[in-house]
Amino acid sequence: MNPDHMKTVKPGGTIGILGGGQLGRMLALAAARLGIDAHIYCPEQDCPASHVSAGFSCSAYDDERRLTAFASAVDVITTEFENIPANTARFLTNRKPVFPSVKALEIAQDRVDEKAFINGQGIATAPWRRVDTLDDLKEALADIGPDGVLKTRRLGYDGKGQTRVKSIETAAAAFAGLDNAPAVLEGFIDFEREISVIVARGQDGEIRCYDPGENRHAEGILRETTVPANISPATRDNALRIAGQLAKALDYVGVMGVEMFVMRDGSLKVNEIAPRVHNTGHWTIEGCAISQFEQHIRAVCGLPLGSPARHSDAVMTNLIGDDVDAWQTLLATPGTALHLYRKGEARPGRKMGHTTRLL
Amino acid sequence: MNPDHMKTVKPGGTIGILGGGQLGRMLALAAARLGIDAHIYCPEQDCPASHVSAGFSCSAYDDERRLTAFASAVDVITTEFENIPANTARFLTNRKPVFPSVKALEIAQDRVDEKAFINGQGIATAPWRRVDTLDDLKEALADIGPDGVLKTRRLGYDGKGQTRVKSIETAAAAFAGLDNAPAVLEGFIDFEREISVIVARGQDGEIRCYDPGENRHAEGILRETTVPANISPATRDNALRIAGQLAKALDYVGVMGVEMFVMRDGSLKVNEIAPRVHNTGHWTIEGCAISQFEQHIRAVCGLPLGSPARHSDAVMTNLIGDDVDAWQTLLATPGTALHLYRKGEARPGRKMGHTTRLL
Repeated sequence: MNPDHMKTVKPGGTIGILGGGQLGRMLALAAARLGIDAHIYCPEQDCPASHVSAGFSCSAYDDERRLTAFASAVDVITTEFENIPANTARFLTNRKPVFPSVKALEIAQDRVDEKAFINGQGIATAPWRRVDTLDDLKEALADIGPDGVLKTRRLGYDGKGQTRVKSIETAAAAFAGLDNAPAVLEGFIDFEREISVIVARGQDGEIRCYDPGENRHAEGILRETTVPANISPATRDNALRIAGQLAKALDYVGVMGVEMFVMRDGSLKVNEIAPRVHNTGHWTIEGCAISQFEQHIRAVCGLPLGSPARHSDAVMTNLIGDDVDAWQTLLATPGTALHLYRKGEARPGRKMGHTTRLL
Repeated sequence: MNPDHMKTVKPGGTIGILGGGQLGRMLALAAARLGIDAHIYCPEQDCPASHVSAGFSCSAYDDERRLTAFASAVDVITTEFENIPANTARFLTNRKPVFPSVKALEIAQDRVDEKAFINGQGIATAPWRRVDTLDDLKEALADIGPDGVLKTRRLGYDGKGQTRVKSIETAAAAFAGLDNAPAVLEGFIDFEREISVIVARGQDGEIRCYDPGENRHAEGILRETTVPANISPATRDNALRIAGQLAKALDYVGVMGVEMFVMRDGSLKVNEIAPRVHNTGHWTIEGCAISQFEQHIRAVCGLPLGSPARHSDAVMTNLIGDDVDAWQTLLATPGTALHLYRKGEARPGRKMGHTTRLL
C-alpha cells in the first residue's frame, strides 16, 4: 500500500458508498455504530441505503460534477457492488482514497482476468476458456468437454448472464443468446459442496477471515448459508489460506467474498471473488460481535480490524421475491432475526430481506 | 388496551421518535433492520439520531404546527426519553397512536406518583416522603431517619437533581439548592447490589423480559452492566415478575427499564422505572438475537415480540466524557464491540458511547 493512499477516518467522519442497495444499507448501519456518517451515491431514488444515511447523492455514475461534489463531501470512498464502472472509480481515486482499488475492481469485473489472476496465484479454478467467437467456443468445448457453463465475461450476478450447456448446439444457442458478447466457458465440475470465505484486509495489510459458510443455491441465486460448513479442519485452513492469499495479491483493502467448490477429495477450486461485503456473510451480524459490514467499514476507514470470532452457529436464509410475504411469521419465530431491505415491489428473484437463525 | 389505539406498522412504514439522542439513534438503527423508517423530532440540530433517520423535524416540543406535521408524516409515535413534556405527548395522542401512553409517561416523570404507583402494586421501594416545604422535610427526616437522598420530584436523570443528606442541616441546604422545588426524600437503604430488568410489553399485552443485568454506578451515572446478575434463581424470578406486573399495571406498550435494589436477604425494592429503552439494556445488541431496541420497535409497531433469550454473557461499559478518547484501543480489543454516538464534544459526565464485551 502506497502510504499516500492510507487514510484514517475518525468517528464523526464520513464514508462515501457507491451504490444504494441492501449491502450499502447494512454498511451504513454498521458505520453508524462507530459514529461514522454514510453518504450514498446511487442513480436510483428511494434506494434502500438512502433512508439510513446522513447524505445521499442521486445521479448517474458518469456525472462528473456530482461525483466531484460527492468526493468533496466524504473522507474515503467504497463500493457496495462490483459492477461499478471502473471509470467512475478511477475518476474518484484522483480525488479521495477509494477502497477496494480500481485494479481490484477491474480484475473482479472480468471473469477472464479474474480466473487468470487466480490461476496465476497457483490456485485452482474449474477449467475455463475464453470465448470471443463461435470458433473459440467450438475449440473450448473440444478442450474441456461438452458439459459446462457459458457466462458473460462481464456484468453477471445472481445467475444472470449464464447458461448451462451440454453440446455444441446448446452452447452455440447460448452464445447467440448473449449477442455474441465476450464470454467464458467453464467446464462443469462435480463438486461436493460450495463454501465461501469472507476475508477482510486492512490498509496496513492485516488479514482476518470469518469461518467458511456452506452455501445452497437455487436457480443461480443464493438461498441459504450455514456456518460452520461441513468440511474438515484441513479444508477449512486451506480455504482461509486461499482467501488471504488472494486478498494480499490484489493489495485488497476491505471485505471480499471468495466462493469455492469443495471437491470430493477435500481439495478446493475457487469459483469467483466478489470485491465487496457478501450475501454469504450476512450471518455475521448475529453470529459475531463484529459483523462483515463493520469489518469492511473498519478496513476502508483505516481502523483496527475486529475479531472475526463466531459466538454462535447460524443459518442465513434469503427472502427472495414473495418469500418476504411471510414476514409476520418470521418475526414470531424464536431465535430468528429478520432483516428487511425496504424495497418496494417483491419482484421474482429480487432479494427482499433475509433471516438469520442462531443454532 | 383500547382496540382503537392498536396500530400495526408494516415494513415500509414510519415510526416517529420524540428525542434525538443515542437512544433514538439506536432505535432508528433497529427500525431500519425491519425495513421501517424513523422520523426524529428533536429541538437540537445535529443530534445523534438525525444522521441515521429518513426524516428529521427540528423544533421545540411546544411547536404545534411542527408537531402536527410530524404526526402526519408517521404511523405511530414513541419517545426516547422520559421527560418529554406530557402536553406534547397529549397533543400528539389526538393525532396518532403514542406508545408508551401519556399516563405511563406522567407517572414515570414524577417521583412521588411513581413511588405511590409502585407501592400501590404491593411492591416495595425505599421508604420515602413527599417534600414540598421545609416543614415536610423536617417531618420526613424525623420519620425515616437522617440518612437519605433528597431528589427533585421531576426532571432528574443520571444523578442530576439529587443529593445525599445525613442531617437536618445538610438536608435543608440541599432543599435550598433545589430552589425549594417539590422534592422527595428517600431513606438510605443498605442494599447488596443493584439490578435492572428490561421488560417489553406488546400492544396485545404480551410480556417478555431480558435477564436482569447487574449495575455499577459512579457519581450517579451508570458505568457498567454485567449479565447475568449475581443473584439467586428465586430473586431473578421475582425481579421478572415485578417488572411484568408494573408493565401490565401501567398498560404499558414498549420497552421499559425497572431498576431494583437487591437486599441482603435477596428481597427486592424498586428504585425507579424508566419508560423507554434503557442504558442497562444496551448489552442486548450483542448478547441476544433481538435487542431491546428492536423489541421496543416491535412493541410500539404492533408486531410480534422477539425472544429475549441471551446467547452470550456480556459486560456493557459506558464511555463517559473523555473515556471515549480510548476509542482506538477499544476497537482493537478482541471480543469487544464499540458503539459511538456521534456527539461532538466530550463534556464531563456526557455519555459518548459504550462497549459490550462478550464473555
